[in-house]
Amino acid sequence: MQAKATAVTAQTEGCSAPQLGGSDPLYRQVMEVVAQSISSGALRPGDRLPSLRKMSSSTGVSIPTVQQAYVELERHRRVESRPRSGFFVRHVAELPLVRAAPRGSRGPARYRSVPLVQRVYEAIDRADLVPLGIANPTMARPATKALGRCMRRVMSRQGERTINYPPTLGEPVLKRQLAFYLLDSVGAQIDPDSICITNGAQEALALALQAVACTGDVVAVESPTYHGMLELIDSLGMYALEIETCPEDGISLRALERALAGRKVKVCLFATTLNNPLGVSMPQANRAQMLELLARHQTTLIEDDVYGELRFDGQRAVPSQFLRSGRTPSTHPGPDVLTCGSFSKTVAPGYRVGWVISARHRDAIARLKRSHSCGSPALPQLTLADMLASGDYARHLIQLRLALGQNAALMTSQVEAHFPAGTRISKPRGGGVLWVELPEGLDSEDLFERAIDAGVSIAPGGIFSPGKRYSNFVRLGFGHVWDEATDRALLWLGGEVSRLAA
Amino acid sequence: MQAKATAVTAQTEGCSAPQLGGSDPLYRQVMEVVAQSISSGALRPGDRLPSLRKMSSSTGVSIPTVQQAYVELERHRRVESRPRSGFFVRHVAELPLVRAAPRGSRGPARYRSVPLVQRVYEAIDRADLVPLGIANPTMARPATKALGRCMRRVMSRQGERTINYPPTLGEPVLKRQLAFYLLDSVGAQIDPDSICITNGAQEALALALQAVACTGDVVAVESPTYHGMLELIDSLGMYALEIETCPEDGISLRALERALAGRKVKVCLFATTLNNPLGVSMPQANRAQMLELLARHQTTLIEDDVYGELRFDGQRAVPSQFLRSGRTPSTHPGPDVLTCGSFSKTVAPGYRVGWVISARHRDAIARLKRSHSCGSPALPQLTLADMLASGDYARHLIQLRLALGQNAALMTSQVEAHFPAGTRISKPRGGGVLWVELPEGLDSEDLFERAIDAGVSIAPGGIFSPGKRYSNFVRLGFGHVWDEATDRALLWLGGEVSRLAA
Repeated sequence: MQAKATAVTAQTEGCSAPQLGGSDPLYRQVMEVVAQSISSGALRPGDRLPSLRKMSSSTGVSIPTVQQAYVELERHRRVESRPRSGFFVRHVAELPLVRAAPRGSRGPARYRSVPLVQRVYEAIDRADLVPLGIANPTMARPATKALGRCMRRVMSRQGERTINYPPTLGEPVLKRQLAFYLLDSVGAQIDPDSICITNGAQEALALALQAVACTGDVVAVESPTYHGMLELIDSLGMYALEIETCPEDGISLRALERALAGRKVKVCLFATTLNNPLGVSMPQANRAQMLELLARHQTTLIEDDVYGELRFDGQRAVPSQFLRSGRTPSTHPGPDVLTCGSFSKTVAPGYRVGWVISARHRDAIARLKRSHSCGSPALPQLTLADMLASGDYARHLIQLRLALGQNAALMTSQVEAHFPAGTRISKPRGGGVLWVELPEGLDSEDLFERAIDAGVSIAPGGIFSPGKRYSNFVRLGFGHVWDEATDRALLWLGGEVSRLAA
Repeated sequence: MQAKATAVTAQTEGCSAPQLGGSDPLYRQVMEVVAQSISSGALRPGDRLPSLRKMSSSTGVSIPTVQQAYVELERHRRVESRPRSGFFVRHVAELPLVRAAPRGSRGPARYRSVPLVQRVYEAIDRADLVPLGIANPTMARPATKALGRCMRRVMSRQGERTINYPPTLGEPVLKRQLAFYLLDSVGAQIDPDSICITNGAQEALALALQAVACTGDVVAVESPTYHGMLELIDSLGMYALEIETCPEDGISLRALERALAGRKVKVCLFATTLNNPLGVSMPQANRAQMLELLARHQTTLIEDDVYGELRFDGQRAVPSQFLRSGRTPSTHPGPDVLTCGSFSKTVAPGYRVGWVISARHRDAIARLKRSHSCGSPALPQLTLADMLASGDYARHLIQLRLALGQNAALMTSQVEAHFPAGTRISKPRGGGVLWVELPEGLDSEDLFERAIDAGVSIAPGGIFSPGKRYSNFVRLGFGHVWDEATDRALLWLGGEVSRLAA
């Protein structure tokens, strides 16, 4: 075995690399050096990659390992080999950005995709399918070891506590750690008593919605938006009203203003940071205007902040509830905002630990939590509190964001390489999904069924809208360890779409 | 230290004892020998206990240990010492059985006790109060070691699985084990696919109720019944209709028939085995008649079976859904029955693992589970599956029932000893609570507040009825390790009630 290069810098023609030395295999680190040089423009389409020998000597990595990296890059269609000439950066047509929903509101609607959502979940549950149908970023870098370590500490110190009834609103130590973490990372001043720990963000959304709205009420949502929100709204007998959402800067303020003026919107259920499936975040100025609008119309905002931690650049947006009025000069008092989040997109979806934060609705939420599930299990809560306190959580997030950024680049380049002209894609700045607009006329529900037969799960676009818009869109998740099966799945998908579009 | 008596039989005047040799301290085993002789009538009020020397020689336990047992029995007011004569079984007036609710329906009602329930939960959460306010049988014999063993096995074999999203309807291995356990213990034939694993029985009830009823519907409940059901019904915008329930044989069939005939009852939410707070189970014949009635009126039954395992005699009633038609000759097809249960009353409330069983409503329940909490954590489920498979669960239940039976006898005898004439009590055949009717005119909400000041939590009777009946009842939980603090709490309560009644 060769010695591990712990701090070598590659400096060859066009390739100025960061230090090698992560825990990844060396060939993957070399791949990353090249990929970053392509992303930064240091290496451009048509450029020749450094020779195997040069790359080997500049990185201190053996020639066979460099070759393995180059072959792998070729498999990912980032480079191409030319006989007796070496490896060259591929010319790939950059796909245009997906388009927003067609203009014009269609009015509040019930959700008509429930049977299809059921089939999507069945596909997601199948271990034999390549899981592109799920938004599950944590699997790009599972924190198995850190979680195990924290759990063992909890079990040895307070095993007995994990057996008895937990406090209805959550373990106090987790709520303190969470408040401290949000203070530390975004300067949010949060009273731990205003936090209710829930069974993942899904229960947080359910409790928040039931605390502020009733059967028959109208809930404004982004278009497109997460199907779990739409199913929830529907199961509570409420109506979803789609607000046009732009792939560049999120919710259209004009569309929102029209909706608020035109009819009684009881509550807005928005993910202003890294919306699922668009991966877009609202610029700060837009967010401030949105909050003004909501305050003026006395409309409550439930903010789904589950992707808040997952910007590839590590910048964390302040949840709207905790934006200081000093930063957003306003003539109105702020609107009523409830913040929902979870650990499901950052570290452990299987722990089912989420939260809803609202001092104003605390009692209503407590009552709902008590009568609908009576408190969440203690052990996952205590384990995550330990992970926050030990710093393991913050360290894990750095690694996870890196892995997701790499996966996003890989998926983008492969879609660009394999999908036909007429395809458009989102440019996610974080999160774990790519939103793909297929050539017009294609039916993504049909593609979903074909994909299952081919061993791949995808999420058809229709489920992201109550009105079954987006029938020619698909959402592809990149939150898993990238492997050959992923390559093959994208190759197959691109080929199938090309065939159907021809 | 004295040698442990592993298989000694006490046979002295009036005292024919089971074998000593459990894991309890020896003095407690001697106490149990005496207590059982009193319960069986072998020792009667006024009888003299065997002398210390005789008891010592017949049990093989040292004289100081026997003395410790006798002094402890005196502290529990089972026996009294007479100077220079020895210990004698006390004369205690047996208290009469609690009475049923006043006759006459008051019609469907909203639940008015929510603020009081909130205060009761706050009291329960306080570690500094003696916890008589909670129904928490497992703490009478915590299965800490067995659970830890099972969890370690799960973590070493499938730790990674516990991190990722669990299947929406629950871990297949737990559902298989549960189906097998119920087949083995009561002969119920259950398709594992008809089981949905939930966040405790509370979520099971919530999903079941939402699957079969809507806002505004009328739900029939036993009177008195568990406050968590009433709060749930209310939070869903439904109305509770109280059905008279007798402390000897449960739901009054006449009252039920009247209710079903008179108005549209959408669903019945009953605990036919060991109702909380009465501790009563419906005789099999009554249950068959009830099912006939429900089938005739096409009324759905949601059966809360959380106490099903906890009859002191170990006899397990078959949940109504699985009664074979062969056993209950019927001219109608059976009614629609959903069965809810959990591990919260038998082994680990902190794990929050419950279930709802219904093939007919499976899809509706799946949809609700998906949109309201998206699946329950994997680790608690896998741990309990292991506990079922290893036989640890069945072994634990035997010990738990024993401990609860002892606690029930202790609490009964102490209430009989300390509470004034005019008090009436339930005769629980299992479970973890005693239902106490205080002398008329007493206000148990007032007593609840006084008790908190004295360091004791109790559950005031008013919360067990939407109509605030039972204002002079209290529910006392005996599901904890019995200690001096419990003795003192009951002594204080009896004194306070006597004072208020005077």
